[in-house]
Amino acid sequence: MSSTYGENLKLSIFGQSHGPAIGMTLDGIPAGLPVDLEKLQEFLNRRAPGQNDWSTPRKEEDRPEFLGGILDGYTCGAPIAAVIYNKNTRSEDYDELKDCPRPGHADYTAQVKYGGFQDAAGGGHFSGRMTAPLCIAGGLCKQWLEEMGIRIGAHIVQIGLENTKSFSYTHPELDQVGTNFPALTAEDAEKFQSVIQKAHTLDESVGGRIECAIVGLPAGLGEPMFGGIESRIAQIVYGIPAVKNVGFGWSDSFAIVPGSESNDRYTVADGVIQTETNHCGGILGGITTGMPVIFDVTIKPTPSISKPQQTVNLKTGEITTIQVQGRHDPCIVPRAVPVVEAAAAIAIYDLILGNTQTTRRK
Amino acid sequence: MSSTYGENLKLSIFGQSHGPAIGMTLDGIPAGLPVDLEKLQEFLNRRAPGQNDWSTPRKEEDRPEFLGGILDGYTCGAPIAAVIYNKNTRSEDYDELKDCPRPGHADYTAQVKYGGFQDAAGGGHFSGRMTAPLCIAGGLCKQWLEEMGIRIGAHIVQIGLENTKSFSYTHPELDQVGTNFPALTAEDAEKFQSVIQKAHTLDESVGGRIECAIVGLPAGLGEPMFGGIESRIAQIVYGIPAVKNVGFGWSDSFAIVPGSESNDRYTVADGVIQTETNHCGGILGGITTGMPVIFDVTIKPTPSISKPQQTVNLKTGEITTIQVQGRHDPCIVPRAVPVVEAAAAIAIYDLILGNTQTTRRK
Amino acid sequence: MSSTYGENLKLSIFGQSHGPAIGMTLDGIPAGLPVDLEKLQEFLNRRAPGQNDWSTPRKEEDRPEFLGGILDGYTCGAPIAAVIYNKNTRSEDYDELKDCPRPGHADYTAQVKYGGFQDAAGGGHFSGRMTAPLCIAGGLCKQWLEEMGIRIGAHIVQIGLENTKSFSYTHPELDQVGTNFPALTAEDAEKFQSVIQKAHTLDESVGGRIECAIVGLPAGLGEPMFGGIESRIAQIVYGIPAVKNVGFGWSDSFAIVPGSESNDRYTVADGVIQTETNHCGGILGGITTGMPVIFDVTIKPTPSISKPQQTVNLKTGEITTIQVQGRHDPCIVPRAVPVVEAAAAIAIYDLILGNTQTTRRK
Amino acid sequence: MSSTYGENLKLSIFGQSHGPAIGMTLDGIPAGLPVDLEKLQEFLNRRAPGQNDWSTPRKEEDRPEFLGGILDGYTCGAPIAAVIYNKNTRSEDYDELKDCPRPGHADYTAQVKYGGFQDAAGGGHFSGRMTAPLCIAGGLCKQWLEEMGIRIGAHIVQIGLENTKSFSYTHPELDQVGTNFPALTAEDAEKFQSVIQKAHTLDESVGGRIECAIVGLPAGLGEPMFGGIESRIAQIVYGIPAVKNVGFGWSDSFAIVPGSESNDRYTVADGVIQTETNHCGGILGGITTGMPVIFDVTIKPTPSISKPQQTVNLKTGEITTIQVQGRHDPCIVPRAVPVVEAAAAIAIYDLILGNTQTTRRK
Repeated sequence: MSSTYGENLKLSIFGQSHGPAIGMTLDGIPAGLPVDLEKLQEFLNRRAPGQNDWSTPRKEEDRPEFLGGILDGYTCGAPIAAVIYNKNTRSEDYDELKDCPRPGHADYTAQVKYGGFQDAAGGGHFSGRMTAPLCIAGGLCKQWLEEMGIRIGAHIVQIGLENTKSFSYTHPELDQVGTNFPALTAEDAEKFQSVIQKAHTLDESVGGRIECAIVGLPAGLGEPMFGGIESRIAQIVYGIPAVKNVGFGWSDSFAIVPGSESNDRYTVADGVIQTETNHCGGILGGITTGMPVIFDVTIKPTPSISKPQQTVNLKTGEITTIQVQGRHDPCIVPRAVPVVEAAAAIAIYDLILGNTQTTRRK
Repeated sequence: MSSTYGENLKLSIFGQSHGPAIGMTLDGIPAGLPVDLEKLQEFLNRRAPGQNDWSTPRKEEDRPEFLGGILDGYTCGAPIAAVIYNKNTRSEDYDELKDCPRPGHADYTAQVKYGGFQDAAGGGHFSGRMTAPLCIAGGLCKQWLEEMGIRIGAHIVQIGLENTKSFSYTHPELDQVGTNFPALTAEDAEKFQSVIQKAHTLDESVGGRIECAIVGLPAGLGEPMFGGIESRIAQIVYGIPAVKNVGFGWSDSFAIVPGSESNDRYTVADGVIQTETNHCGGILGGITTGMPVIFDVTIKPTPSISKPQQTVNLKTGEITTIQVQGRHDPCIVPRAVPVVEAAAAIAIYDLILGNTQTTRRK
Repeated sequence: MSSTYGENLKLSIFGQSHGPAIGMTLDGIPAGLPVDLEKLQEFLNRRAPGQNDWSTPRKEEDRPEFLGGILDGYTCGAPIAAVIYNKNTRSEDYDELKDCPRPGHADYTAQVKYGGFQDAAGGGHFSGRMTAPLCIAGGLCKQWLEEMGIRIGAHIVQIGLENTKSFSYTHPELDQVGTNFPALTAEDAEKFQSVIQKAHTLDESVGGRIECAIVGLPAGLGEPMFGGIESRIAQIVYGIPAVKNVGFGWSDSFAIVPGSESNDRYTVADGVIQTETNHCGGILGGITTGMPVIFDVTIKPTPSISKPQQTVNLKTGEITTIQVQGRHDPCIVPRAVPVVEAAAAIAIYDLILGNTQTTRRK
Repeated sequence: MSSTYGENLKLSIFGQSHGPAIGMTLDGIPAGLPVDLEKLQEFLNRRAPGQNDWSTPRKEEDRPEFLGGILDGYTCGAPIAAVIYNKNTRSEDYDELKDCPRPGHADYTAQVKYGGFQDAAGGGHFSGRMTAPLCIAGGLCKQWLEEMGIRIGAHIVQIGLENTKSFSYTHPELDQVGTNFPALTAEDAEKFQSVIQKAHTLDESVGGRIECAIVGLPAGLGEPMFGGIESRIAQIVYGIPAVKNVGFGWSDSFAIVPGSESNDRYTVADGVIQTETNHCGGILGGITTGMPVIFDVTIKPTPSISKPQQTVNLKTGEITTIQVQGRHDPCIVPRAVPVVEAAAAIAIYDLILGNTQTTRRK
C-alpha cells in the first residue's frame, strides 16, 4: 500500500505540495498517552526550511491542527488526525513540469504512473513536504518512547567528501548533537556547512549521510525474517524522498572485515549481558541485543539545481533544456535529520505495540 | 508480522533448521500461470551448499514437495504450498547454544525474546536454511516475471577487499554471469574465490557485496512513499539473514557527488524516453523509470568460525569461550546470490499484482 | 486494526462526535477517476438528520472539504482526504456519560477500554456521526462502480413488526426506491413511517431491517475463504453502529428449507448462464455468480430514549437511573440506508481493485 | 486476501479436497504456550465425518502432522505449520463438475474465476475439507484461551423447522452440550437427529442454526468500527463454507423490539458491573461488556443431494440434468459446530494479541 505504514499502528499520510493541506492519521494508538504539543512543535521546527542563509527561504509555518484523537493533553483512543494547511496555492507555472520533467525528480515517473492526472505542482504527493506529517507522527511516537526510556537521535556524518567519526557504538553521545546544526561537534558542523555553502555558490547541490541511534531498547524486540528491526526501519526510511542507501551498524563495511573482527564478543557489565563492541548495530537475527540500534542513511543531492539540465519534452518528444526556477536548498541533509528520527520512532513504536511475546521463561 | 511478506500476494515461511520440515505458502497468485518445476529446481540448486571444496559439505537436497496450488503444471488459484523435509534431525549437542550464545548469531536475541522456548538447534527459525523456502517462492515469481519479459540477475561485486566493476547500469550483462561462480567475469570469479579460499585456510570467514538488476520493468511501477520500489525491496531483502546494507543505484556514493552529476539526464532512444545514465537505479520517487532497477546488498561474514570466541554463559553469568564445531561455509555470499534474486522477484511480482493504476491518459 | 478498512484501498476514518472535525483518508485509488462532488453531496444528504418531523432536528451540514487526492474533478493518485468540521463543540454536560453509562451505548465499554481517557461527548469515536466519513468514501466508490455499470441500492424491508416483500432477487427494482423514504413502495413507506411516528410518541425507539442489492457485478469476483464477498461485506457493515445481524440471500431462512429448494438451478437466458432463482444472494463459495448480490442488515433500536433507564454510577458503584436528554431519532434505520450502500460500495470496489485473476482461459 | 486471516496472528490455509495435502501456517504466536496434541485431536474428531449412520461414511483420519513451531509441547515462537495428507487421490470422475456445475456449490463460480485452471475435484479449495486446518488453528487458540479462563462452546439451536431455546444469555450452560450430538438437551438432540434422518430418507438435505458463546472475556476487548468483535468474528465465520447469516445477541430480533426492551440495564452483581440481560450479545460499540459474547450462524442445506437437478453444460451451453453421485451428508450442521468454535477462537485470540491498550486509568 502506498502512503500507509505500520503493522500495529496505522499511519496514513495525505496531501500534495500545493494542494489545500497535508496531514496524517495515526490509528491504533493506546489511550492515555500524554501529548506535549509544544515539544512536538520544537521537533517539527527542526525540519522547517529557512533556518540559515543558504537554505530555501520559503517560510512554511508547519503548525499542525489536530482534528481528533487527542483530548485534554492525552490520547483518547480514537485515531489521531492532524492537518497543516498549505499557504502556497497552486500556480500555473508548474504545468511545464508535466511536459518537461526535471531530472532526478519524480515528475516523469508520476506522469507515466498517473497518466497526466497527477498533481504536478511542486512535486505533488512526491514532494519533500510530505515529511512534515511524517514528523508529526514520528514526533508523537518519539515522546511516547522517551516516556519508556527510549531515546532517538540522529546527526550528519558526511556531506560530500567531508565526513566525521560516527557515534561511539557503545555510548552514543546523543546530547552532544548541536541544535543549530545537527553534527556531533562544532568543528564538524563548520566543515559540513562550508561544503554546503560552496555548493550553493556554484549553483550546485550536495548529498550526505546521516547516522541515527536508538538508545534504551530492551533486548528481544523485533520479529523474525521480514519483521526484523532492519526490515521495518528500512521500509519506512526509504519512504523519505531522496534516501538511496540504508545500512545497519558497520553496514557496507561488513564486506571488508573478517568474521573474527565483525562478530561482537559477549561480556557482562553492570550485571547485564552486553557486547563489547556494537558492529551489528544492536541487531542480531532482526532482534535487538539491548545495545543501541545504529543505522545510517544516505541522502542524494537535491535534484533541484539552477544549472540548465537536459530533459525531454514529453509532448513533442524532443530533447530540450530545463532550468529549475526559484531558490532551492543546496542540501536537504540537515532538514532530513529529524525526519530520519521520526521514521525510526514510528517503526520502533509500531514494533513495541505488536510485541506480543509473553514474559514466560523456561 | 514476522515471517509473512506481501501486500497482494501473501508469502508465509515456516520451519526450523532441525525441525521436521521447512516450507512456505504463497497465497494470492492468479490461476493459469505455468510452473516449470525443473527450472525451479535448477534455481534452488544455485543456493544449495556443497558446490565447491571450501563450502559446507552438508548435502541438504532441497527438493520441494508441493502440497497445493499447482495442478497439471499450472497454478490453480488455491494457495501454493511446498515443504522440504529436513534430513538432519535435531541433535542434543545444540543445547550449548542456549547457554553460551555464539557471537554474531541470533542465539542470544532468540533466547531473550522467546525465553528459552525457542528451537535453538542450528539457529532454528533464524537459520539461513529459511532462505530455501524463500527461493521456492522467489523462483516461481521469477518464472512468471520472465514470461512478462522481466529478468532478474545478481552477481558478486565484492568479497573482502577485492571488488569489481558493477553492472553497466544501462545495459546489464545478465547473461554473462557465471554459472559456476556468480561473478561477471572469470577473472572476477577467480579473485573472489581466492579470497574465500584464503579465509577458509585461516579458519576465518568473509563477507561481500552483491549487485542485483531487474531488467524489463515498465516505467510507472511502484507506489508513493512507503510503497516505493526501494521500501518494498529493502523490506524483503533485509529478511535474508546476514544482510546489513541495502542501497539503490549509486547508493552510498550519492553522499559524495554533486547534484549536476547525480541527476540522470533524460533523452530519447529508439523512440523511448530514457535516461542517459542510471545513477538512480531505475527509480525516482519510488516509481520505476523504465531503466533497469539496480540495487546492492552487503552480507556480513559468516558468524560461524572455528576460532575460539568470547561469550557469556547465560546460566552462570560467567564469561567463557566458545568454539563453533563442524565445518562451516567461510563465505555465504555466493549462495546468497540466488536468494537476493528470489527476494527481488517476490517484491516485484507483489507490486505488479497490486498495480491498480488504470491506463487512462489525460 | 480499528478504524481502518481495506485490502487494496485503505480507508481510515477519524474524528469524534464533538471533536474539532470528522473525516477520512482513502489511499490506493487509481488516478484519473472522475469525481462528481454535487452527486456526492446528494448522497451524503440522504443520511443527514432532520429530514422529517420525527427525526433529530440537529442540522449538521455534512459538507466535506477535500484536502487532497482530487484535482480538477479527477482523482490524482494521491490519497484522498476529506474533513467535515464539527459545528457542535464539546459541552460539559457529557461528563455524566462517563460516570453513568447509557444502556445500549458504548459509554461503558469505552470507559473500560480507554480507562477514562476516551472522548465521551456524544459517544466520541463510537458515534453514528462516524458514518458521515464512511459515506464520503462510499459515495465516491459508488460513483466509480456506476461508471463500470455496477449499481447499489438499499431500502427498508422491516420496521418493528411491519415488514414487506423484499427485492425480487432476479430483477431488483432499484429505481423504485422512494427518495423521500427508502422503501420499495409508497405503501411500505407509509407503514414504516407510521411505526416510527408511534414510537416517537411513546418516547420509544424502534429498529428494522435493510436490504441491499448490488447489480451488474461480473461473475467470478471475490476470493476464497476469508476473502469471500460475504466476509468482506460483513466486516465493513458490522462497522456501522447498531448493526446486529447480516445475512446473504435467503439468510436465516436457509435453516428451514430443504436443499432441493434452496439450491438455485442453472439456466441460460439471453445467452448468459444464470440461475433461475437467486436464493444464494448471488454468491457461491464467496464468489459472485453474476446475479445480483443481495444482503440484509438488522439495525437495533436507537439506544437513546427519553424514558428513565437503570444504570450504574461507575464512581460510586451504586445503581441509579439515567434519563437521556435531548431530542433523539426514534429510528435510525432510514438514515442507515445510504450508509449500508456506502459500506457495500467500499467492499466491492476494494475487491475489484484486488482482482488480480488473469483472463487466461483453459 | 483470500485464504489468509488475522491482524496480529496470521493464519494461512492451503490445500484442495483431493490434492496431496491440506494444512495451515499460523504465524505471530508467542513462544512458551503449551500445546496438548491429544486434546487437539479430540477437538478435530468432533468435525470428522462418519460419526453416525446418516453421515457421510468417508473416513478421513484428520490427524495433523506438525512441521514447525512446536517443540517439546510448547510453542517455540516460529510459525506453527501443520499438514494433513489426503488419502483420497484425485479421480477422473470429477471432470464432469467443470462442465456441468452442481447447483449450490462453487463449481461454476470457480470455473469463471479461474478460467478452468481450478482444481475441481471434490470442490478443490472450496471444499468443506478446508475447515479441518481451520480447526487445527482454532483448536490451538481455544486451548490458549482456556488457559486464560476464556471458554468457547457452540450447539445447534435449529434444524429445519425444529428449534430450541438458546443459551441463557447470562449463564451459558456450556458443559451441558452433548458430546454425541451438539445440542443443549438430549431431547433437542433427538428432535434434530430425527429431522436429519428424515431428510436422509428423502434424498434431501437440511440446514440449521448454530449458537456460540464465548465466556470469560474481559470487558473492553475489541477495536472501534471495523475492528469490533462483530466485524472480526463475522469475517472469519463467513469463511466457513455454507454460512449465510451471522448475528449477535438478539440478532435479527432487534428489528422487532422497542428500545426500552432491547437495551440491557446495568447492574452490580458480586461487585462487578454487569447487564441484567444480555440482548446485545456481550458487545456494545464493537467492544466487549464482560458478559458472554453470543452469536448465531445459519448454515444452508448441503447442496449435494441425490435428486436430479437442472444445470447447464458449460461446454455446449445446453440445459441438462445432473445427479450428484456418492453418499452425502444430509446435514453438515453438526460437523460445523466445532468449526464455528474454532473460527471464534481464532478471532478472539487475534484480538487479544493485538490488545495494546494500556492499563492506565484516569
